[in-house]
Amino acid sequence: MAGMVQASHTLDVATRGKGFIEITRELADWVESVAGRDGLLTVFICHTSASLTIQENADPNVRRDLADALDLLAPEDRPYAHQEEGPDDMPSHIKSMLTTVSLSIPIKDGKMTLGAWQGVYLIEHRASPHQRKVALSFIGHSAGA
Amino acid sequence: MAGMVQASHTLDVATRGKGFIEITRELADWVESVAGRDGLLTVFICHTSASLTIQENADPNVRRDLADALDLLAPEDRPYAHQEEGPDDMPSHIKSMLTTVSLSIPIKDGKMTLGAWQGVYLIEHRASPHQRKVALSFIGHSAGA
Amino acid sequence: MAGMVQASHTLDVATRGKGFIEITRELADWVESVAGRDGLLTVFICHTSASLTIQENADPNVRRDLADALDLLAPEDRPYAHQEEGPDDMPSHIKSMLTTVSLSIPIKDGKMTLGAWQGVYLIEHRASPHQRKVALSFIGHSAGA
Repeated sequence: MAGMVQASHTLDVATRGKGFIEITRELADWVESVAGRDGLLTVFICHTSASLTIQENADPNVRRDLADALDLLAPEDRPYAHQEEGPDDMPSHIKSMLTTVSLSIPIKDGKMTLGAWQGVYLIEHRASPHQRKVALSFIGHSAGA
Repeated sequence: MAGMVQASHTLDVATRGKGFIEITRELADWVESVAGRDGLLTVFICHTSASLTIQENADPNVRRDLADALDLLAPEDRPYAHQEEGPDDMPSHIKSMLTTVSLSIPIKDGKMTLGAWQGVYLIEHRASPHQRKVALSFIGHSAGA
Repeated sequence: MAGMVQASHTLDVATRGKGFIEITRELADWVESVAGRDGLLTVFICHTSASLTIQENADPNVRRDLADALDLLAPEDRPYAHQEEGPDDMPSHIKSMLTTVSLSIPIKDGKMTLGAWQGVYLIEHRASPHQRKVALSFIGHSAGA
């Protein structure tokens, strides 16, 4: 009978400017590396101009349409008060607010309880490449404990 | 002095096309069934065209206005690249991205710490009825442990 | 070797009408007060017309632009069905749905894993001052356990 364990990690993700980067595999690999069996994985992005979402991992057009939708909701050509960091910065903050910085995913039998078509994505909202940090937490039962 | 426990479950929710379905009672019943006392309930929907929200549970007009607001933010009559699954599919993905797939609710004395007017809702974004899966996780102290 | 602990608390936040109120310090103080070392902090707002976000804590213009963006996404001058609680109420529910009611933040070495520019904010969406309740949960290892 295993007790409860807690593990944490920081994932480094290099982005290439605006776009969706799938991190599902990296999350699954980390859960496996800590022998997480049943519990909760939390994914937290340590930035305010990039964010997280869980979306369809099949047709790449879905991500293209999602990016277009975010551009319409937070256009660059609005007279923002915050202009110092470039025209893509304030829209990035709005997009971050409308999506999410934290996701909590139950872990069952060592696997994320994702649906068949769900992939976990980091969304880079800035125009230029960035190094992004994603904090991971697992709490639950471990096969090794 | 009870130790920490972890429990998980899958809730099946049948939807009848676009609309808000309250699942507050089902969540409360499950927390009670695992004798959860103090800890954290996580609710995760395993889909990308349905999502979760916590909203006012009193006036049904609130949900009607929320649905209208989502329709305005993700209209069906936009020239989406992703068209294969019908005109309601891509708006569903956008609405899912703008609301949430995971909710974490503290549990205190066996009850969710919901405010008086808060209900937990599954939002079906597709036009036709679907069978939806919601993964639940409780971590914390149990009355039975 | 410390075991896992669970702690909970309710934070009372007085708002002064529409605006962003930073609660980062209050969260950090509470985690310190329960000697939380490594684990997960969950922040849950018990209301449907105020919400949470993590955003840039440097230039105050960012919050001004975020508030303007929310006003554009949920304007007061739309013919909402739900009108009884004033013209600012239904927009508040929409803004709450588009931001979030729950945030989960990993705790590492006693500190939230926030990025350098991340602050945690309660967003009051109503025009008049309110008393808001925020439920906190910590699960993880404690220095005192």
